[in-house]
Amino acid sequence: MVKSMAAKHAIWPRENDIIFNLSERAQRAEKVTGKDNVINATIGALMDDDGKLITMESVYKEYKELPNGEIGAYASLAGQPDYIESVKKIFFREYMPDAHIRVVASPGGSGAIKLALWNYTNIGDEILTSDWFWSPYVSIAEEIDRKVVTYKLFNEGNSFNLTSFKENFLRIADKQERIFTIINTPGHNPTGYSVSDDEWDEILDLSKEVAKDESKKIMIFVDAAYIDFAGDDKVIRKFFRKFSNLPENILVMVGFSMSKGFTAYGMRMGAVIGITSDENIAEEFHYSCVHSCRANWSNCNRGAMAILSNIVKDQEKFNLYEEEKKIYKEMLSVRAKAFVDESEKIGLEILPYKAGFFISIPCDNPKELCEELTKDNVYTIPLKMGLRFAVCAVSESKCKIAPKIIKNAMEYLESKKVATSEV
Amino acid sequence: MVKSMAAKHAIWPRENDIIFNLSERAQRAEKVTGKDNVINATIGALMDDDGKLITMESVYKEYKELPNGEIGAYASLAGQPDYIESVKKIFFREYMPDAHIRVVASPGGSGAIKLALWNYTNIGDEILTSDWFWSPYVSIAEEIDRKVVTYKLFNEGNSFNLTSFKENFLRIADKQERIFTIINTPGHNPTGYSVSDDEWDEILDLSKEVAKDESKKIMIFVDAAYIDFAGDDKVIRKFFRKFSNLPENILVMVGFSMSKGFTAYGMRMGAVIGITSDENIAEEFHYSCVHSCRANWSNCNRGAMAILSNIVKDQEKFNLYEEEKKIYKEMLSVRAKAFVDESEKIGLEILPYKAGFFISIPCDNPKELCEELTKDNVYTIPLKMGLRFAVCAVSESKCKIAPKIIKNAMEYLESKKVATSEV
Repeated sequence: MVKSMAAKHAIWPRENDIIFNLSERAQRAEKVTGKDNVINATIGALMDDDGKLITMESVYKEYKELPNGEIGAYASLAGQPDYIESVKKIFFREYMPDAHIRVVASPGGSGAIKLALWNYTNIGDEILTSDWFWSPYVSIAEEIDRKVVTYKLFNEGNSFNLTSFKENFLRIADKQERIFTIINTPGHNPTGYSVSDDEWDEILDLSKEVAKDESKKIMIFVDAAYIDFAGDDKVIRKFFRKFSNLPENILVMVGFSMSKGFTAYGMRMGAVIGITSDENIAEEFHYSCVHSCRANWSNCNRGAMAILSNIVKDQEKFNLYEEEKKIYKEMLSVRAKAFVDESEKIGLEILPYKAGFFISIPCDNPKELCEELTKDNVYTIPLKMGLRFAVCAVSESKCKIAPKIIKNAMEYLESKKVATSEV
Repeated sequence: MVKSMAAKHAIWPRENDIIFNLSERAQRAEKVTGKDNVINATIGALMDDDGKLITMESVYKEYKELPNGEIGAYASLAGQPDYIESVKKIFFREYMPDAHIRVVASPGGSGAIKLALWNYTNIGDEILTSDWFWSPYVSIAEEIDRKVVTYKLFNEGNSFNLTSFKENFLRIADKQERIFTIINTPGHNPTGYSVSDDEWDEILDLSKEVAKDESKKIMIFVDAAYIDFAGDDKVIRKFFRKFSNLPENILVMVGFSMSKGFTAYGMRMGAVIGITSDENIAEEFHYSCVHSCRANWSNCNRGAMAILSNIVKDQEKFNLYEEEKKIYKEMLSVRAKAFVDESEKIGLEILPYKAGFFISIPCDNPKELCEELTKDNVYTIPLKMGLRFAVCAVSESKCKIAPKIIKNAMEYLESKKVATSEV
């Protein structure tokens, strides 16, 4: 008999992280065939053209100059007060909603999702997100016995599928007190889509309509992990103002992360931001989240908080940071353009990319295609409905040649299938 | 009507952290009356005689020399492989149990407790710890609907109260499949007690007796946060060998933390260590905990892991670290001795202190006494059954005068009570 000690709810399939595995295989291939001959599009972090992690000088210089005490001391459970203020300032900029806003520190964006999901849903609740989604949403939800359900992200015109969103939103509203939806925008992982301002209006109109039933509680979680690489800093923030003066039973929460915008993935620093028109609901948000902080990880990385605060509070440092980030934003957009343009030229179907770290290629057989591509030394991540290609981690020249390799591999698999069915 | 959006399980009394509040008040008093005139014994971190946080040079030098990529990149969910090996090496030293051992990285010791408690108990389960205990155990347990119950830590001879432990252990075993007990040792927070090797034999004998019923699952969680300041590094580790070849339905888990031993509180780095005689149970432990990592905070602070690994792997660095730590260990023990000796001399009753950051003074009216002491500019933390005095944060000379001030305040409150009852 196989022995077991874990509680029933704690036993999961013994699978290792697929991204980590493929990334390891890509690195082995690089050692065997040389870096120039491998396209490693598995990694969700900005890499330079030589495949080295980009770490912003304006961020790391700040870190190394911190007094030890600023790194070593415990932080407040909710986050250091100046961190909280700095997060608000850098996140909203000129587009602070007219609302009661609270910020609670978290280990990265993951911790922010955990705080929101745990405190604002019940066991068994369905959580709504799009069919193209970041898979850890499922881990976070299933760990605490919530279930992720999906709507179709795209309609036939390749824009936000409000019909499918509405259908599912209303279906959940019909059977649950709580409607919790995660919208990953701008620069959606894994497709690179950004919800437009008009589409936000439609989402909020629907929410307000459902909110007329005062027994319903609507939570809109905006996973904004890629906002710093999602286009013009002002334009993409306009939709924040739409979160002003919402009905009291609509709570907007935002997952803020330093990982991408500060090239600080390993520091594990983020925050959950609560936006509500009711002060009591804002206070409740604070206390619920702080209790969860204490009960899950206690406080967060103090040094990382200090970096953000120091940069945001000092105009000169902030300008240097913005200038440096601009370089990498430009680099990313040149790479993505190379991939998108080439795909269009050769007729490789990709999902509508607007910004962010990833481009997705829909296909019927992602695992098979992913394996086939490894034979050409191209490493991608297989999703349920396609492949994820990390333009953030691949040089422009490789981004230009990848679409053709992918298309060839698709055609080869297709021809094999036809051949087999003809036998 | 007061508006609310949080789920029922997420609504808690709106209390702020009492330690943080008292620590703030102490700091204000220092500004008003001068540092020399204030005894701030609230802080659970090593402070120098001027009240400044001690940060070990051998640790922070290492941090500041890390290549950016070692700080910035995402770490593996379970922790970097060399971190995992280094934790095992530095934690067990010559006393590695003969068992299957797994290590999973966590944000500090708090995260380790969360991982163990969540994965090895069920909703509604009673969790057993001593009546003098670190209060966040309750936060961690109540957040997920588990309940902390307590046994009397001390018997009349002021040593481990096996009778009370046994009574409660058996009571829980009688009604629950799972018996989960947290033992904070060596250098218990808040009393400074350390369970002796003989007492460990008694605890394990009782566990083995109960384990004869194969339907029972026994989890012993050793919260070893203060092990680096708990006496001779070898002597205090001897009990680890007792975790060898235990029955398969006894799982020992250890909370490892870098906070104290590396003066790295704000870095939030620790690990949960699983010790079992069954390989499958060890593997299950790994996968259960890793799923929880992904679902709560994702990965941990990579730079902090690198510091530990670099120090443990390099004998010269390790020696420097050990030498530096020795200075602070000595400092702590001199302070504690001053407090203990003076208490004995003047007849202030304190709990049996062996090692660690805190000394506890039992009393009937902790909150009142704590307030009374602030009038004398002495700041302590009120617990349910007494006061916690942080010798880690107070100079030797202040440790020497504090007992008398505390005794006087106690006597004053006593006399006031008598006077009132005589009216």
